[in-house]
Amino acid sequence: MKTERARSALDSRQLAEYLNGGKEKLQRIAELAGILKETEWGDKSRRYYLTRTEEYVDGLKAALGIWQLIRSKKISMEDGMEARKLLNFPGGLELHIGMFIPTLLSQATPDQQAEWLPKALGLRLIGTYAQTELGHGTFVRGLQTTATYDEDTRDFVVHSPALTATKWWPGGLGKTATHVVAMARLFIKGRDHGPHAFVLPIRDMQTHEPLPGIDVGDIGPKFGYNGVDNGYLSFDHVRVPRKSMLMRFAKVTEEGEYVPPPAANSKASYATMVYVRATIVEDAGWLLARSVTIAVRYAAVRRQTAARAGEREVQVLDYQNTAADLLPLVAACYALIVMGKAGMESYRHFEADRDRGDFEGLPELHATLSGMKALSTWIASDGMEACRRACGGHGFSQLSGLPSILQSPNSTLLTRLFDLRQTARFLVKSLLAAEGGKATAGSVEYVANARATLKERCAVRSAAGWLRSDVQVAALRHRAARLCCEATAALAGASGGAPAFEGPAWNGRTVDLIRLAKAHCALVLHRTFAASVRRMADEGTVPPATAEVLERLVALWGLAALTREAGDFLEDGYLTGQQAAWARAQQYTLLAALRPDAVALVDAFGIEDYLLNSALGRADGDVYRALLAAARASPLNATQAGPAWDPVLRPLLTDRPAARL
Amino acid sequence: MKTERARSALDSRQLAEYLNGGKEKLQRIAELAGILKETEWGDKSRRYYLTRTEEYVDGLKAALGIWQLIRSKKISMEDGMEARKLLNFPGGLELHIGMFIPTLLSQATPDQQAEWLPKALGLRLIGTYAQTELGHGTFVRGLQTTATYDEDTRDFVVHSPALTATKWWPGGLGKTATHVVAMARLFIKGRDHGPHAFVLPIRDMQTHEPLPGIDVGDIGPKFGYNGVDNGYLSFDHVRVPRKSMLMRFAKVTEEGEYVPPPAANSKASYATMVYVRATIVEDAGWLLARSVTIAVRYAAVRRQTAARAGEREVQVLDYQNTAADLLPLVAACYALIVMGKAGMESYRHFEADRDRGDFEGLPELHATLSGMKALSTWIASDGMEACRRACGGHGFSQLSGLPSILQSPNSTLLTRLFDLRQTARFLVKSLLAAEGGKATAGSVEYVANARATLKERCAVRSAAGWLRSDVQVAALRHRAARLCCEATAALAGASGGAPAFEGPAWNGRTVDLIRLAKAHCALVLHRTFAASVRRMADEGTVPPATAEVLERLVALWGLAALTREAGDFLEDGYLTGQQAAWARAQQYTLLAALRPDAVALVDAFGIEDYLLNSALGRADGDVYRALLAAARASPLNATQAGPAWDPVLRPLLTDRPAARL
Repeated sequence: MKTERARSALDSRQLAEYLNGGKEKLQRIAELAGILKETEWGDKSRRYYLTRTEEYVDGLKAALGIWQLIRSKKISMEDGMEARKLLNFPGGLELHIGMFIPTLLSQATPDQQAEWLPKALGLRLIGTYAQTELGHGTFVRGLQTTATYDEDTRDFVVHSPALTATKWWPGGLGKTATHVVAMARLFIKGRDHGPHAFVLPIRDMQTHEPLPGIDVGDIGPKFGYNGVDNGYLSFDHVRVPRKSMLMRFAKVTEEGEYVPPPAANSKASYATMVYVRATIVEDAGWLLARSVTIAVRYAAVRRQTAARAGEREVQVLDYQNTAADLLPLVAACYALIVMGKAGMESYRHFEADRDRGDFEGLPELHATLSGMKALSTWIASDGMEACRRACGGHGFSQLSGLPSILQSPNSTLLTRLFDLRQTARFLVKSLLAAEGGKATAGSVEYVANARATLKERCAVRSAAGWLRSDVQVAALRHRAARLCCEATAALAGASGGAPAFEGPAWNGRTVDLIRLAKAHCALVLHRTFAASVRRMADEGTVPPATAEVLERLVALWGLAALTREAGDFLEDGYLTGQQAAWARAQQYTLLAALRPDAVALVDAFGIEDYLLNSALGRADGDVYRALLAAARASPLNATQAGPAWDPVLRPLLTDRPAARL
Repeated sequence: MKTERARSALDSRQLAEYLNGGKEKLQRIAELAGILKETEWGDKSRRYYLTRTEEYVDGLKAALGIWQLIRSKKISMEDGMEARKLLNFPGGLELHIGMFIPTLLSQATPDQQAEWLPKALGLRLIGTYAQTELGHGTFVRGLQTTATYDEDTRDFVVHSPALTATKWWPGGLGKTATHVVAMARLFIKGRDHGPHAFVLPIRDMQTHEPLPGIDVGDIGPKFGYNGVDNGYLSFDHVRVPRKSMLMRFAKVTEEGEYVPPPAANSKASYATMVYVRATIVEDAGWLLARSVTIAVRYAAVRRQTAARAGEREVQVLDYQNTAADLLPLVAACYALIVMGKAGMESYRHFEADRDRGDFEGLPELHATLSGMKALSTWIASDGMEACRRACGGHGFSQLSGLPSILQSPNSTLLTRLFDLRQTARFLVKSLLAAEGGKATAGSVEYVANARATLKERCAVRSAAGWLRSDVQVAALRHRAARLCCEATAALAGASGGAPAFEGPAWNGRTVDLIRLAKAHCALVLHRTFAASVRRMADEGTVPPATAEVLERLVALWGLAALTREAGDFLEDGYLTGQQAAWARAQQYTLLAALRPDAVALVDAFGIEDYLLNSALGRADGDVYRALLAAARASPLNATQAGPAWDPVLRPLLTDRPAARL
């Protein structure tokens, strides 16, 4: 690994400081890792050996461990957030911290906050957020749980009218939570006012037994995330007082009058979603960065196949196909991390605008980040699996750390396709608006001239011509514009006039709509990545030699995207066959040029060994010793004879009466 | 589901009989499932809840259960093989059955067989096969373990000279096996004769303790396959008698003379690999078929998003993008299953040729099936993940059955890229041989005219023109021929003359070589699929209405492959942009045409509910009831308060001194 590190001109340390929020922050993360690994609950040496029950109990202990460090002022609240990331042990308190408390803060009245917040913050009650139902996912309007106001008794009757209305998935609901925020359709005087939020106790505070009318439990083992007790919950005519409804915005009076929320509220909750999505994009980049760090370091250590007897086997990273699998993924991590940071910056600009009452930029920001969330989790989950496969057999071992990254819910629980359809809808509407004379702005500005740009052709005249990021961005923009025109025409054609944005005509065209949304997001992602790296170079955030490597990485990322979907650019003649061939050739040149920087580039993510918890991804490269040491600690090795010897193997292999042989 | 089934003209039952080897076989599989689920060891209701230790012990019990059914003549040996598939519970005996016994049969002398085989067959010893080492995978010549012949004592000294020489991965080695076949480099009088096979005892037969000089244990938890105790093993100068070396072919005399194996032997072992690879291709199809059955049935049951309030939500399968994800995967299953059957048929032809001393067809068959094994496991593992994602949140639950399919070692432990490089090498060599005037035959015949075909252009004149499978096959053939010419030229150019088949010039071009191998295998796969379906129609294996649906499936498979990689066909002008657009349009038409047959097509795989063990994939579609029932049985639900109440939550939530609040 020393040799590998010496090969690169990259300043890994300085880059890591930038990516992780500064020198002090990076230093503090290392200190926190040191603190955590010395605690009983933060020791990760047995993490991969836990049974599900142990994982659940230990996950809670670890969360409480951090909470106590904060309470005792040994670490700050901000440290606590970093410690949770380092600990990487999702458990029964995830939604208490991530959804229950934030919902109280944003949707409860001051009186309601006074009642529940101090207890929630002091962990004297534990909450979760129950929206999804067994038969209903992201389509919130389809929820079946009801809360019916009884004007006589002045309370609500909460009820699950069907099996499919059973609440399903909330983290911590299974065995941990004492309370929930439940989304239920509000009925008053026979009228359906749609989903509203209610705070309900579900378990007895002294015995933890479910309260009358409550059926609650764990939903069973999952692909991963098994420290979390995701749960189910159904209500059998459960009566709760009127003040259970969160009434900061919509209200129900004692007499049963419904007071709708002020109109601006929907925009505010929109803004929260923008914020969350920017976070998801950056998190996807960091999650992928963990896999990529492991895979690249291992590919530098691992050797396979010698051409001649007696020669040393070749480093796996020196096979072009390994480099072609891994280096674009290194680039992907950087692209997603800087995209997330840029999205957060856009959100801060929006906040400033909002404080002046200007919500104009919000729909565009929301549409783009919705799609970007989908694209980023898609890139990350495909990339994590590619990293696992690139590590061959050893990537199949949990001790590599790779399966557990892949088993995180990142790739599944985020509603990716749904979001991409929203993005496509916004793009088609923007095109129609522009043709109707309305202005388009922000990342979708280009659709205003979409039709005019259809005749554009790529100007590249050599393989090296592809190194310019503006040339790459132009190609991605052309594709997105073309697909937007085609989708608009197809939707209009299908309905014989104005485009259909729902129903069978829309549902029957979702393949091309998703292609369009991905093309748009790929454009925004690459443009943002290129611009961010240029700014880092211009502002001297990193030394020139480092900036040069990053610029190559930008070019590689763009070319990998272009060549993977070359047909999109060839089909309408935007590219010639020769230009496509140059793109591939230039990509191969970049793979070779970036090969010496591979290890330095993953070092620059600055990910602690403690977080990776990987025998293959260790910074020191001492892979095989670590694998064997970890294997020896496996519970099956607790005895030499193993757990099947007494019950199964001994009777079979020894002392059997001869007659049975 | 009844409605779904009534929509199709497909005769699912008759097709299932064909795919599963006949009416009686299919019936017998159903009977065996009935027998197994009534046994204690065959009951799958707690399968997803087992800890790793339980999985290991129960896996062995289940294997012994089948063995005892066979020994007591309740089922036949052939039934036993089907029962193993239905049970789907890999454990500590996999390599005893799959490698140890077969190796004794093929490589031991009659005397050696007499010593070990009866005990192995009677389970009085349990073996495994130890080849791979911690630092050495598929490159057998790189193995480090040594077996040095001591002429004085007339025995071998087996030794692991380095950490990386530790044997790693053999199934059953960790805690089960008493013996191994170990591959070690044979040294006699200082000379290295390369890897040879030795049978060695590793554990005391009375105590199961490792023998002196043996360090053995389990390698720890894996992504999946955790019922199997994959193990590590190292030797510290372990002495074993001369007869430990398997000497049917190569021999070492008492005096220490090395007698090399007869030349024909390498061809015979080649043939075994052909056989194994044909099996892997068909197995990949069946593994994917399990995922696809689950995903398609669930997508027919699951509903999401209604256009208007009060309307029923739309079946997920009615979104074009879901159909576009799943229907080509249905086609992939059929393609792989019939490809595996055709590969097996080729092998039988080869056997007949071999008996006449004709080995000519072997290299081509081996090269193509090597790549096909890689392509098929690739298609299957990508497809399994796509199925999991298509099922959204519920696909993340182990109760769906989808994660456990994905977690099988199918996608990782098979050395895919290595195989593809072999295939590419064979293709380039075939092109050069043809240019040197030598005949090419079998699946690579087309490369003989590769250069002449470069000017070919696709003849399609309408979207419907793409329905002809010969048109699709011609496009795939053109691509493979072009890539073969380009790869040959690039390799020759790099070395300035004769192409390099190893070393940096080869290693630095593996991306295009792998593209070439995949293109070749995609051609063979599609051509075989189309021909098999045509034969089924011509021979009346299935009714005409069923054949018609299958022909649509062939067309969909071809078009999905063509449009996914459209750039490959556009780049050299083989396709025009218009033709590519027609291919996509025709693909969409086929998706709509095949939508009513989706459920019938997965029913036709004939996969038992017992094998699927999936709440989502049940034949009756009663998904939500099954999910809730399975969740209730989760071990975390053994008590209402849960396993963290006493140790963690009760101290936190109750009776705490006020001062700490």
